[in-house]
Amino acid sequence: MKRITKNTQLCMSLAARPGNFGTLFQNYLYEKLDLDYIYKAFTTTNLGDAIRGIRALGIRGCAISMPFKEDCIPLLDALDHSANTIQSVNTIVNTDGQLKGYNTDYIAIEQLLKENKIDKNLRFALRGNGGMAKAVLAALANNGYKNGVVIVRRPEAGKALATAYGYSYLLESEDFEADLLINATPIGMAGGKEELHLSFTLGQIEKAQVVFDVVALPIETPLLKAAKQASKVTISGADVAVIQSLEQFVLYTGVRPPLGTIVEARDYTHRAISGM
Amino acid sequence: MKRITKNTQLCMSLAARPGNFGTLFQNYLYEKLDLDYIYKAFTTTNLGDAIRGIRALGIRGCAISMPFKEDCIPLLDALDHSANTIQSVNTIVNTDGQLKGYNTDYIAIEQLLKENKIDKNLRFALRGNGGMAKAVLAALANNGYKNGVVIVRRPEAGKALATAYGYSYLLESEDFEADLLINATPIGMAGGKEELHLSFTLGQIEKAQVVFDVVALPIETPLLKAAKQASKVTISGADVAVIQSLEQFVLYTGVRPPLGTIVEARDYTHRAISGM
Repeated sequence: MKRITKNTQLCMSLAARPGNFGTLFQNYLYEKLDLDYIYKAFTTTNLGDAIRGIRALGIRGCAISMPFKEDCIPLLDALDHSANTIQSVNTIVNTDGQLKGYNTDYIAIEQLLKENKIDKNLRFALRGNGGMAKAVLAALANNGYKNGVVIVRRPEAGKALATAYGYSYLLESEDFEADLLINATPIGMAGGKEELHLSFTLGQIEKAQVVFDVVALPIETPLLKAAKQASKVTISGADVAVIQSLEQFVLYTGVRPPLGTIVEARDYTHRAISGM
Repeated sequence: MKRITKNTQLCMSLAARPGNFGTLFQNYLYEKLDLDYIYKAFTTTNLGDAIRGIRALGIRGCAISMPFKEDCIPLLDALDHSANTIQSVNTIVNTDGQLKGYNTDYIAIEQLLKENKIDKNLRFALRGNGGMAKAVLAALANNGYKNGVVIVRRPEAGKALATAYGYSYLLESEDFEADLLINATPIGMAGGKEELHLSFTLGQIEKAQVVFDVVALPIETPLLKAAKQASKVTISGADVAVIQSLEQFVLYTGVRPPLGTIVEARDYTHRAISGM
């Protein structure tokens, strides 16, 4: 039995619909590395009081999910580059009452582009228009990917997002092909309306070199499955989820776990969530 | 390893100088009774934001210690009789965002007077003037103890407290004797300035029938030791601490543990604190 005391640090998350990924993943690492922390997901209908409570109670860190990622910004004391560059916060670190916002999704995406040595000269096509689309697009723009297009349903949305980062846009109905296909829509998400759909055609997948799906659940989305069958390099939303949560862990604790432990924590969390 | 999830309920405490009693005692009971709760002590320098945070985050319950027991009242939505009768809150229960204040010290003192069948006709002498003195005096007054005196250092303090509950007062320097001696000062507290002092003389103890010390640490204070040596009935502050924390547990979880489990939790907590 883990002994919680007055000195145990609490970390948490805030989301309209909390999941269990962070709670399971972070607590596994705390336990394994014998760190005096606990983690729990919360929801709220009063973001201001929730954030003021985090500061007043000395809660060490807080993951921020939909729909609070932008609304929390005026309540913080500082923004890290990762959050400032996309004006979206998914992580708050509380250091003696000073709240600093980070975006570890952005950090994870940058890391995955580097780790997978994705050629900067590839032409990319990114589908989507939400927070994750913005994080991916900013990571591409800040890391020298010059050649790409944003694929959107409505022209206004696409124009705003694409031009903000110096890219062009196309409508879904138009024909396109690209070397690097990125899905940043909920298409393929477990439990969603378009759970079994592909955000790109089999023909587009065939012509690509790399397929990146930001959808985290299922671990293998229909798009990733199709890309693997076509022998493409793949980057998964489940990878983004693990790395972004790991970076939160490092920010909260100052400890970077060994790779083997990270893999164990990931596998434990995936197994636990599948069993819930 | 206890699996914390998004559904796990958090309970907590707020104190200027948090201890570990509540954290150890409550977590032991949660674990033993397989309840999906965790408990942790907190401190704050911003009581308003801390309480607003409790409401906004859906934290199920909060123990309130010095110096917040009165200041928290305007921040709550309702007061139970136990808190209202002494205008002092040591417990907040959060039911769907509605915060209700209780005083389980008062409840514990009432219970101990009943359990120990303390005769209502005994003449009592109570030393002290703080929050615990008020809780004891209110419990005596509300339970028909008509015959008593408050012993104080300064006449103004004693007059206000004693007359509020219909009793008389005496100065420490004056002679007195009583059947029921109650210490509600920090005299005898571990680590305090008067750690080895007695709040009543050996002669007064000899003439009494019952000695009640609200000091919770050490478990056997010098006063209780002297009273036991003189074969008096004793009620200890450690008993008050256990019962008040138990009543918080019942308020938070709706579960009343079996007596054997309560004793186990008490013994575990006492052992753990001694070893810290």
